Amino acid sequence: MSKLSSFFAPAAVAVVGASNTPGKVGHSLVRNLQESGYPGKILPINPKEKEILGYRCFPDIAAVGEPVDLAVISIPAVHVLQAARECGAAGVKHLIVISAGFKETGTEGLKLERELVGICQEHGMNLLGPNCLGMMDMHTPLNASFAGTFPVKGEIAFVSQSGAICTAILDWSLERGIGFSKFISLGNKAGLNEADFIEDAASDPYTKVILCYIESVADGRRFIRVARSAARKKPIIIFKSGISEAGARAASSHTGALAGNDRTYQTVFEQCGLLRVHSLEELFALATVFTTQPLPKGDRVAILTNAGGPGIIAADNIETRGLTMARFEKETIEALRSKLPAEANVYDPVDVIGDARADRYAFALEKIMADPNVDSAVVLLTPQAMTEPEGTAEAIIKAKENHKDKPLVASFMGGPAVRKGADLLEAAGIPCYAFPEPAIASLASMVKYASFRRAPLPQPEPPRQFDRRTVEQVFARVRGEGRKVLMGSEAAEVAAAFGVSVAPLGLATSHAEAARLAEEYGFPVVLKVASPKIMHKTDIGGVRLNLSSSEEVRQAFAQIMENVRRYLPQVTPHGVEVQKMMPKGRELIIGMNRDLIFGPMIMFGMGGIYVNLLKDVSFRLAENLTRAEAHAMIKETKAYVLLRGFRGEPPADLEAVVDALLGIARLCVEFPEISELDVNPLFAYEKGVAALDVKITIS
Amino acid sequence: MSKLSSFFAPAAVAVVGASNTPGKVGHSLVRNLQESGYPGKILPINPKEKEILGYRCFPDIAAVGEPVDLAVISIPAVHVLQAARECGAAGVKHLIVISAGFKETGTEGLKLERELVGICQEHGMNLLGPNCLGMMDMHTPLNASFAGTFPVKGEIAFVSQSGAICTAILDWSLERGIGFSKFISLGNKAGLNEADFIEDAASDPYTKVILCYIESVADGRRFIRVARSAARKKPIIIFKSGISEAGARAASSHTGALAGNDRTYQTVFEQCGLLRVHSLEELFALATVFTTQPLPKGDRVAILTNAGGPGIIAADNIETRGLTMARFEKETIEALRSKLPAEANVYDPVDVIGDARADRYAFALEKIMADPNVDSAVVLLTPQAMTEPEGTAEAIIKAKENHKDKPLVASFMGGPAVRKGADLLEAAGIPCYAFPEPAIASLASMVKYASFRRAPLPQPEPPRQFDRRTVEQVFARVRGEGRKVLMGSEAAEVAAAFGVSVAPLGLATSHAEAARLAEEYGFPVVLKVASPKIMHKTDIGGVRLNLSSSEEVRQAFAQIMENVRRYLPQVTPHGVEVQKMMPKGRELIIGMNRDLIFGPMIMFGMGGIYVNLLKDVSFRLAENLTRAEAHAMIKETKAYVLLRGFRGEPPADLEAVVDALLGIARLCVEFPEISELDVNPLFAYEKGVAALDVKITIS
Repeated sequence: MSKLSSFFAPAAVAVVGASNTPGKVGHSLVRNLQESGYPGKILPINPKEKEILGYRCFPDIAAVGEPVDLAVISIPAVHVLQAARECGAAGVKHLIVISAGFKETGTEGLKLERELVGICQEHGMNLLGPNCLGMMDMHTPLNASFAGTFPVKGEIAFVSQSGAICTAILDWSLERGIGFSKFISLGNKAGLNEADFIEDAASDPYTKVILCYIESVADGRRFIRVARSAARKKPIIIFKSGISEAGARAASSHTGALAGNDRTYQTVFEQCGLLRVHSLEELFALATVFTTQPLPKGDRVAILTNAGGPGIIAADNIETRGLTMARFEKETIEALRSKLPAEANVYDPVDVIGDARADRYAFALEKIMADPNVDSAVVLLTPQAMTEPEGTAEAIIKAKENHKDKPLVASFMGGPAVRKGADLLEAAGIPCYAFPEPAIASLASMVKYASFRRAPLPQPEPPRQFDRRTVEQVFARVRGEGRKVLMGSEAAEVAAAFGVSVAPLGLATSHAEAARLAEEYGFPVVLKVASPKIMHKTDIGGVRLNLSSSEEVRQAFAQIMENVRRYLPQVTPHGVEVQKMMPKGRELIIGMNRDLIFGPMIMFGMGGIYVNLLKDVSFRLAENLTRAEAHAMIKETKAYVLLRGFRGEPPADLEAVVDALLGIARLCVEFPEISELDVNPLFAYEKGVAALDVKITIS
Repeated sequence: MSKLSSFFAPAAVAVVGASNTPGKVGHSLVRNLQESGYPGKILPINPKEKEILGYRCFPDIAAVGEPVDLAVISIPAVHVLQAARECGAAGVKHLIVISAGFKETGTEGLKLERELVGICQEHGMNLLGPNCLGMMDMHTPLNASFAGTFPVKGEIAFVSQSGAICTAILDWSLERGIGFSKFISLGNKAGLNEADFIEDAASDPYTKVILCYIESVADGRRFIRVARSAARKKPIIIFKSGISEAGARAASSHTGALAGNDRTYQTVFEQCGLLRVHSLEELFALATVFTTQPLPKGDRVAILTNAGGPGIIAADNIETRGLTMARFEKETIEALRSKLPAEANVYDPVDVIGDARADRYAFALEKIMADPNVDSAVVLLTPQAMTEPEGTAEAIIKAKENHKDKPLVASFMGGPAVRKGADLLEAAGIPCYAFPEPAIASLASMVKYASFRRAPLPQPEPPRQFDRRTVEQVFARVRGEGRKVLMGSEAAEVAAAFGVSVAPLGLATSHAEAARLAEEYGFPVVLKVASPKIMHKTDIGGVRLNLSSSEEVRQAFAQIMENVRRYLPQVTPHGVEVQKMMPKGRELIIGMNRDLIFGPMIMFGMGGIYVNLLKDVSFRLAENLTRAEAHAMIKETKAYVLLRGFRGEPPADLEAVVDALLGIARLCVEFPEISELDVNPLFAYEKGVAALDVKITIS
């Protein structure tokens, strides 16, 4: 039983601000409830009316005198708080606030909205809105919105942050015959947000596919948790707008939402297994194919066509979308060859040529669908002299019935000549497109989602014991000195405490200590003056490279201190850092970006001067980063080619790089005070890795 | 007067293979001519018939006894040659061969096709096909095809290599009300090809936009010449399929065409100013906007919407497509603010909010269109309670009339509620889309094409005197020795002869000569054994680096020769190459790929070990490569960032890199025998460049 069961199927609905005046929102709400065929009680609330649309009207919610599951409020913003309080007192479980005039209007509105949230929390009421269109459940049925359209019953749950996009989509769905299970306008998302409805829809037996239009995510951590689990049950197709600077400006003037960085959103969606689209058209194209077709078992697609050109276009799209052309069994090829004309092509794409009637399509399609090397198929048809679009459509429907377990889509190219055939297909639940490209795009999304579903559940990392205490001590010391930026040796100590191999590095306060450290690490070593106040260490003679004996180290120490005294007499350095010079490895970078919405993100890429030039980096959420995800993030970048062994080099120690990623991720999760972190470079060797320079800033 | 005038508007058309049997191609051809309203003479040819569809039928073309401009042949392939000969003898100017059974069927068919071409050449006849659907001219009018549909008269010339795509598009155009000026099915392209029809359409007064669907280009050089010039006159929108390996296989089984590398096609299209699309839908979306809207003066787009969500989507698309959000004049903002509701957004995207009626749209759109900082506009509408789609459409049409010089497109989102408004817009020549994304995509293509048209004509490089003679001598010597691969010193000599700065390099056959060269170049130098037979020179001690005196050079020479004698006694080296060691510069690569269809292509990118890893390279046609194009190809790659000065480095000598590119391009054009060429690395310095290693192979 979902916490939203009585939200979507309430026993009684009150409309606060119900009206007898047609055209007013308070009138539309009551009429929509009535016309939707809602089987529960409809309770208009308005002190000035006795009856509205045949329902007894109450002066206030208290006067109803019986339990009310859901109240829909549509009165001026200034009166909403009072109404909400009354609803709370009357035991209402769920509130939909249609009224605008909250966060979206500025500071005053935001204050009002916060108070509204407080009232709802106090009374344990769920809140949808404010500033929304309402919601609908087509299976209850219930239209608790002021939208003019109640869509057809179907298997798509649609959640939208924009009310206008709701009305447009509702209207559009009528023309296309697209049905919905639930339809939710999120509004300002002060209470319930996308995560709540994704979670609910995931367990809703009437919903097969979840569609989301959002401009931002309200609660990043919860979204990730919910989406990850929901995506394992049902495809979630998401259209996130506000990706551009211009879009983000428009988004913030729109709902005052804090639009996150698009790259972060992309990472989150990918990592959670959501299917991201970049247009509304695509959103619904995918919804259709996912509601009608089974998930494919693999990526091998067969094309059946009556003309070469469209076959080529489809084959192109199969390649660019990362799918595979099917390679038929010998028996399939022989069967096709034995019955098809000599000019036909019996390999994928199968071309039954221009004079093919329905029977030829039927024969070839049955052979193709039965082939064990075919995971899904697309049938292309162009209207030529002998073509039988309707008969062919029937043949396709029949073939699909024989092979229910394989997705099948079609593209009947043309207009009036193919219209009836295309309609037959659509009616039978076989998506039919005007052109081959979207047909292949739909299959590609199914293959992507199916492979996500097939992938084993991410295995949480076995808990490793990290040395939290050392990190706490270092941070306390840094804070104690009124600093935010760690010195190199401190940062190295912190990284090492979380299992990252660092090049041996320590702080020496005397030439004797410097020599001792150097002897401990082994020669050659580097000496660098240690002071957060000295930016350009080399310029003032604060760095000495390649020291190969204790004597050289002692002299260098003295020389560095002398240089500081001479050039920066006002600075008292902490000492001199001694670091073992490491052999050159493959240069990598690990970084962290703390996203305001989703928390710490780990970055990985090739290091060296090319980092900024190439921007070839990958990101993952730090929280619960798994070994498999760390591997995947390495493989996404060109650094993987370097690590695997480029131009005859032996492969580098990939597992050691993964360990470093996991350690850094864990460190950033456990210490939220780390605001910036960079390991650059991390050298990867044939065996092991070494962090040469770790930079950490705490807040 | 185009050479194809009497092809598209013949005084008389003969149909060889005309038939009285409905359903036969020979019958459809006569009926289509009749029904298209063709005003000229229709002359069926068939020895067995007296009359077809009311026209007198002739036994053969000779029997016609009057001049025939165009003959359409539809008889079995084996009889086509004879018919073509008779047509030639009878003075026919143009031949359309509908019949299949030529190149597409294999070797025998190819032979037949070549003979057909020979006959046409002999008689000076143009040939369309064979294996095609025919052609139509909607302005003549003339339907010289066997397609079942004669489209509406319009301003789009459509050229297609696939007959099936022709029939599909014709049928589809009926539903969408899309009109055409000419419609050509290219078939096997044995005679006339895409270049002929692009050239013709460019000068056709009835054609405003040229659309092409091709799977390959028949004659690369001619295509480039024609397309470059035609694109300056009219937009050419091209859909090239067969881009994938799978697609290319399907393409070659389809028409036996030699599909070129897609990267090369992309380069050619870009360089010629063609607009490439990747779907049939996009092909026609662009055709519509280009036939109805003027070219924009710049890239600043204004959005007008009645809802935030669609505004954000449009703004996102403006950013991702490289367009700019308009920044209005102060007066515009003040005017909008004075009349629009307080909640409205008066900056781009202008949001007239949900309760906007037509008058509010009208007011805001007039202000926006009049703003000098707006180059084009898009109007978005979602159906809300107060929305007036038809009234708003009328307001948009009026605003467009006041501002004919600026492109205006719309997206009316929804179904039945907005349909009439959308239809009004389409009828008035304002493209209206169901979603914002394709609206912005259309504007982006217009901006791209407008900027191509505005760009100054490419200035041919002033002829530079290159030393052809030296190159000829080197090649003659290499050939004389039975080699194909040039030695380093030879390749350097060739590159230098075409103005490429090379690191001083020469071949020494004695230790004295080596020392003399070293003294001439300046120390330090490198010595390398010179022999095409020695692959791994370092392994046998054939390379000596960093030699800094004549004495060292002499000793190294002797040592190298000794090493060769010891390890490879069977080899007699040409000598030892002496090269001046150059300081490290920014590492670049220049290469050449000789494309079978389009000729030599020059490649440019970052050099060093990253070349193969990053594949960050750009290409241009070598022929007529201009200084501006060479600059553009550098800017396309990340090497540009390096050259411009990365991380505080001073900029490198860009003009010297350009000179090297121009020299290499010219060299490859003038010497078609160069089959492979690589300059890797080319070092770029603050002043000048130096090619360190030039590899050339000749055929």
